[in-house]
Amino acid sequence: MAEFRLHCFGESGNAYKVALMLQFCGLDWEPVKIDFFKGETRGTKFRQDVNEMGEAPVLEHKGKLLSQSGVILDYLACLTGKFGWANEDERREIYRWILFDNHKFTASIATLRYQVALMKQPESDVTKFLRGRVENAMKVVEAHLAHTDFIACGRMTIADLSLCGYLFYGEELPFDISPRVDAWCQKIRALPGWKHPYDLMPRALV
Amino acid sequence: MAEFRLHCFGESGNAYKVALMLQFCGLDWEPVKIDFFKGETRGTKFRQDVNEMGEAPVLEHKGKLLSQSGVILDYLACLTGKFGWANEDERREIYRWILFDNHKFTASIATLRYQVALMKQPESDVTKFLRGRVENAMKVVEAHLAHTDFIACGRMTIADLSLCGYLFYGEELPFDISPRVDAWCQKIRALPGWKHPYDLMPRALV
Repeated sequence: MAEFRLHCFGESGNAYKVALMLQFCGLDWEPVKIDFFKGETRGTKFRQDVNEMGEAPVLEHKGKLLSQSGVILDYLACLTGKFGWANEDERREIYRWILFDNHKFTASIATLRYQVALMKQPESDVTKFLRGRVENAMKVVEAHLAHTDFIACGRMTIADLSLCGYLFYGEELPFDISPRVDAWCQKIRALPGWKHPYDLMPRALV
Repeated sequence: MAEFRLHCFGESGNAYKVALMLQFCGLDWEPVKIDFFKGETRGTKFRQDVNEMGEAPVLEHKGKLLSQSGVILDYLACLTGKFGWANEDERREIYRWILFDNHKFTASIATLRYQVALMKQPESDVTKFLRGRVENAMKVVEAHLAHTDFIACGRMTIADLSLCGYLFYGEELPFDISPRVDAWCQKIRALPGWKHPYDLMPRALV
């Protein structure tokens, strides 16, 4: 059994954030497939045994079960000394962007992609609403990247891993990635060990 | 001038999370009103001078400008030694709930209230969508509170302050607060220094 076990499924960009971190850090890990589209995360057993929040990903390490991608990235950064902070101001600057990601960026991108690309729902007032939120959040990141190469602290950190999680799904993304955001994604893609989500984790949707 | 200046407006539950922390910690602070409903946070000047994310709240302290309520709560907990963590596991447990709050709980509650109670929009597919998300997030917190008095670490922390932020707006909330969540809110309301959001911050909607 690998040292790290990531409860995940290929379609989850939140799980991918962690898979990519494990990958970039060269850690010994294996995916444990969650049958998301059959409702596994919403079931009583999953909530009792794995994650009361009913969400992927969950990282299993030395008997611990960690959830929330931001917290798992934090845990792995502290453990490996990679992509983390050098002081408390940096820690908070990194979390400022992870929180923005969770609240505005990933939150809208993931839900829009889920509805349009995975569930094949037609455009509606809800997708229009979500598109507005994706655009607003994208503009904030686009403007931010005008004066920095990476999201926080002037170097690659777990804030980059959090924000980029959903942006590597290519044709599944029902919106345009703006130019500086795209250039920043290409920098991450060029790092040693980078792999596409579906090459790191088993798909749950067949 | 007060030591802490909170750029805020009364209707913002995210600002209220920080106002309540400043209040419970007995700090010397004053509100600086943001004209949110006239578009102040969305303007170029605000984004350049105050917060590139275009959001309230922002805390001004000793020349620093801090944004994201979760990060400001973290900053104040470290500064005062109150409502924070005793070790790294506790820090991550607290952030696990702050992230859940930002992604699922506050995110859906704030947007639903904004549309229905503040903008007086009629019920629609979007409000129905948001209601579903509020219900799911509320169920997670309701189940969690079956076996603990507070959100994280078995005591009052900044995780409680994050999650409760929007729940004290009374009749403005277009949904029911579930029983255990309500009982937990009453415990927070009973703490010395508690005040209603509109008694701590100036309203922007007139």
